[in-house]
Amino acid sequence: MKDKASAILLISCPDQQGIVCAVTDFLMRHDGNIIDLEQHTDTEEGVFFMRVEWELEGFALPRDQISEKFSLIADRHQMKVELHFSDYRPRVAIFVSKFSHCIHDLLARRHTGEYNVDIPLIVSNHPDLEPLAKMYGVDYQLIEITKENKAEQEQKTIDLMREYSIDLIVLARYMQILSDNFCRQFPNRIINIHHSFLPAFVGAKPYHSAHQRGVKIIGATSHYVTSDLDEGPIIEQEVMRVSHKDSVESLIRKGRDLEKVVLSRAVWAHLQNRVLAYKNRTVVFS
Amino acid sequence: MKDKASAILLISCPDQQGIVCAVTDFLMRHDGNIIDLEQHTDTEEGVFFMRVEWELEGFALPRDQISEKFSLIADRHQMKVELHFSDYRPRVAIFVSKFSHCIHDLLARRHTGEYNVDIPLIVSNHPDLEPLAKMYGVDYQLIEITKENKAEQEQKTIDLMREYSIDLIVLARYMQILSDNFCRQFPNRIINIHHSFLPAFVGAKPYHSAHQRGVKIIGATSHYVTSDLDEGPIIEQEVMRVSHKDSVESLIRKGRDLEKVVLSRAVWAHLQNRVLAYKNRTVVFS
Amino acid sequence: MKDKASAILLISCPDQQGIVCAVTDFLMRHDGNIIDLEQHTDTEEGVFFMRVEWELEGFALPRDQISEKFSLIADRHQMKVELHFSDYRPRVAIFVSKFSHCIHDLLARRHTGEYNVDIPLIVSNHPDLEPLAKMYGVDYQLIEITKENKAEQEQKTIDLMREYSIDLIVLARYMQILSDNFCRQFPNRIINIHHSFLPAFVGAKPYHSAHQRGVKIIGATSHYVTSDLDEGPIIEQEVMRVSHKDSVESLIRKGRDLEKVVLSRAVWAHLQNRVLAYKNRTVVFS
Amino acid sequence: MKDKASAILLISCPDQQGIVCAVTDFLMRHDGNIIDLEQHTDTEEGVFFMRVEWELEGFALPRDQISEKFSLIADRHQMKVELHFSDYRPRVAIFVSKFSHCIHDLLARRHTGEYNVDIPLIVSNHPDLEPLAKMYGVDYQLIEITKENKAEQEQKTIDLMREYSIDLIVLARYMQILSDNFCRQFPNRIINIHHSFLPAFVGAKPYHSAHQRGVKIIGATSHYVTSDLDEGPIIEQEVMRVSHKDSVESLIRKGRDLEKVVLSRAVWAHLQNRVLAYKNRTVVFS
Repeated sequence: MKDKASAILLISCPDQQGIVCAVTDFLMRHDGNIIDLEQHTDTEEGVFFMRVEWELEGFALPRDQISEKFSLIADRHQMKVELHFSDYRPRVAIFVSKFSHCIHDLLARRHTGEYNVDIPLIVSNHPDLEPLAKMYGVDYQLIEITKENKAEQEQKTIDLMREYSIDLIVLARYMQILSDNFCRQFPNRIINIHHSFLPAFVGAKPYHSAHQRGVKIIGATSHYVTSDLDEGPIIEQEVMRVSHKDSVESLIRKGRDLEKVVLSRAVWAHLQNRVLAYKNRTVVFS
Repeated sequence: MKDKASAILLISCPDQQGIVCAVTDFLMRHDGNIIDLEQHTDTEEGVFFMRVEWELEGFALPRDQISEKFSLIADRHQMKVELHFSDYRPRVAIFVSKFSHCIHDLLARRHTGEYNVDIPLIVSNHPDLEPLAKMYGVDYQLIEITKENKAEQEQKTIDLMREYSIDLIVLARYMQILSDNFCRQFPNRIINIHHSFLPAFVGAKPYHSAHQRGVKIIGATSHYVTSDLDEGPIIEQEVMRVSHKDSVESLIRKGRDLEKVVLSRAVWAHLQNRVLAYKNRTVVFS
Repeated sequence: MKDKASAILLISCPDQQGIVCAVTDFLMRHDGNIIDLEQHTDTEEGVFFMRVEWELEGFALPRDQISEKFSLIADRHQMKVELHFSDYRPRVAIFVSKFSHCIHDLLARRHTGEYNVDIPLIVSNHPDLEPLAKMYGVDYQLIEITKENKAEQEQKTIDLMREYSIDLIVLARYMQILSDNFCRQFPNRIINIHHSFLPAFVGAKPYHSAHQRGVKIIGATSHYVTSDLDEGPIIEQEVMRVSHKDSVESLIRKGRDLEKVVLSRAVWAHLQNRVLAYKNRTVVFS
Repeated sequence: MKDKASAILLISCPDQQGIVCAVTDFLMRHDGNIIDLEQHTDTEEGVFFMRVEWELEGFALPRDQISEKFSLIADRHQMKVELHFSDYRPRVAIFVSKFSHCIHDLLARRHTGEYNVDIPLIVSNHPDLEPLAKMYGVDYQLIEITKENKAEQEQKTIDLMREYSIDLIVLARYMQILSDNFCRQFPNRIINIHHSFLPAFVGAKPYHSAHQRGVKIIGATSHYVTSDLDEGPIIEQEVMRVSHKDSVESLIRKGRDLEKVVLSRAVWAHLQNRVLAYKNRTVVFS
């Protein structure tokens, strides 16, 4: 029986000669057929990034030996390495509050098979979207948060992530700020959608601010969540033209489509193992 | 001999019933053939805006009586009114420092006839672009500015504006901050290009900041100049996608095309008498 | 009890002086407070278009007398007039085949309240999407079509439209060509999404054609359906950049987001009574 | 004295294992420091493409031995190879007719130093733009073309290209169709700008056609010229939104900015040796 899946290496290391050669030589020696290879050098920072994907069929190493065999090369070049397999189904938790356009969109992408993931869990600080979770047959955990109970509720949430073996958390217009502790538990594993073209209009009510400032273009930004609110590494942004005719309400309405598409693209890129975060920026291999 | 020109009224006033009717009735009673009419109501602020353009040929009032005859209506509705004629050739002064891409673009648009304006004067705080002025046969005034001489040099500049009967000042990457006094002399008559998507990255070196922040889209913004730096009413913005591959230098290179097109569109809209500024925002009739 | 709804007149007629004045005068005489007014003159064709929306609260005429009272003006100017009320909930039927991304998106917009419509019926030539209809509690009519039964099945479909009192038919990737007879029954009442930037790549498999031609941008087009396939009046288009890296499969994947957003905007504009079709083109008041 | 320049290899060959490894190994063995490496595999066609750029400083081979030494690898993999040096100043001829916006833009980019090229020659079938050539100090050759003299005038033009050692011909709204013979002399060395979003609206008057069809977006396309009119490999495209308000004249005016930016980007990509044409498509390494 053939293995149609592919393997993906995500590599970052100090820039130096011979890395591409070393990696591709490793794959060739084990009969690896490269499907895709992208590399990027940040010459200012002196950092090298690489994503290489190859067919597992015909590859001379079994999956569970790749990391070990590659570690020689990795160590020699001080690489940080991630190894992924294309047929792994990531487990995604969606966090929501009351707005449902983003979660609707994500669940539909799962439902139509566009996203090859499991979505076993929705977490919310409000009960409003439980019926939607029911429609799609997804568990819904109501974790109401007050000033007093925040720490313990966050711990409960972290426990849920473990219990459900969650790989990726998507904040689909979740209106709670995650604590430093929470963020550190899931580095580059929490994706948020912010409803402005960051760094313009950080914080609450960005459409109101955009209207107030009279901008002619609005945007949305998806980023990994760090303990600095709205300051994490940007994965994707998109914009659209507006005009003086647009009220705050119409900015909100139009912006919803931006939020949906930007969040879905960021999640897609992450799921395809195409994103490498460093120094509050990202390399997104296309 | 026929008069192929048109007249344009730009109106703003407190919102109330019957304004469109009053204005269109006035034009009809004098046999005015409306070419274009746009109106906008800012319901939050309770302000009404209107632009109406009609053919002068066949219009029963001579040009110099329109304002007086219309003043009855204007007074009744507390209107602020501007009257323009499409065959008037505005006189534009361009302010530059050392970067020449924007002025190149503006002079070419004048040269090809796209802009129906006179550009009698270029003002600069550096001598570098005098040869370009010579190529296009435009006067070049070198007004070098130091901390010590700023006030008097600005007065000299203001005098030049009067001397050359300048209607519109375009800051085409002019790297000096204009004083409050200067700005107040030419309200909504100075257009600047800022090389970022405002309000993101105000101030100097926005491309460096954009690179540092790792944005996936860069922009440019054209606005009327007020005494608040980079805070004046936005007329036009445009953006383009970038990626981790773009160095600061490549952002600067790509951004030049944004700056050119955004500035040229803002100047065009102003020259067509399509822009009404209010409360740090603009209505740009399309 | 107050009537918060508004009334909308959509007007087209031969261009002539005094139309705006006549319409606004009519509204003013009946104490109509205009919320929005847009007009457009196609000077080549000599046709005038207008959309005016005013508050019903305080308006001196009851709803059912507006048409009659306005007919004096309408007749004098040979107007084609549509009168709509903002609180009317249009009834929409969605036609699908097997692809579900567009219908997912439309149903979600209905579900979140973005679209203020009833969607009582889904028609399909395949059974595949019946479970989705069930999820949203919408009737699903399977109308399988063969060469032999096409005429009678279309008649059955037309009967369903009457039975369900359908105002608007949305073809959400419905892969059957409607007959002339069907199209004529619902003039400017059927909206289709075509998965290319028309008029490029008419017909089947446009993403394959786009890939073959090596375009750097793909698009989607929403239009009213006429008996000429892919030739009806265009309501909305959107595009996105692609590159040599995009396979046909990735064009299809990326294109789905274009299709969703373009179709949803076209439907929105229609539902807001903002679209006037003429001569195979549209005026879309913004 | 140091050599700050870089060398660029553009490679295409049948897809097979080990190519990236062979090329990077070659560079490493000669102490080449890779600045940029991009590869692409067209899996349908089974063709591999690669662009690799490395510093000449420190590289162990002198420039004139690179091709020979690399030929071993090239032959083994049946590679088509181009070798370029970043400090070579290409010689560009611009062909124009009467419209000057594109040539204005190109000359300004040369003048400001954005384009590191020589533009020694402008060829035109009309005398109109000779003054512009004079302004920029460029030779202007008037080659008037009639049905009768087309063949001999083309030969004269070809001779001029040889005489001026032209590397790249840019058709900046040149309104003559080049013969098969002419096109074959300069394969992938002639870049044209077409004022539509190809393949929509091939041929003359695309803005009129776009207006007639009522599209909501217009575009421009830059492509290599082949003997099939408007059918050559597309290098770059760009679009912008328009509306029912845009007359043909306003489409033409807005389109000029698209044409300028699309042509300039295509020329830039070509000058950076980033374009590989195959099967009427292009790979444009970013």
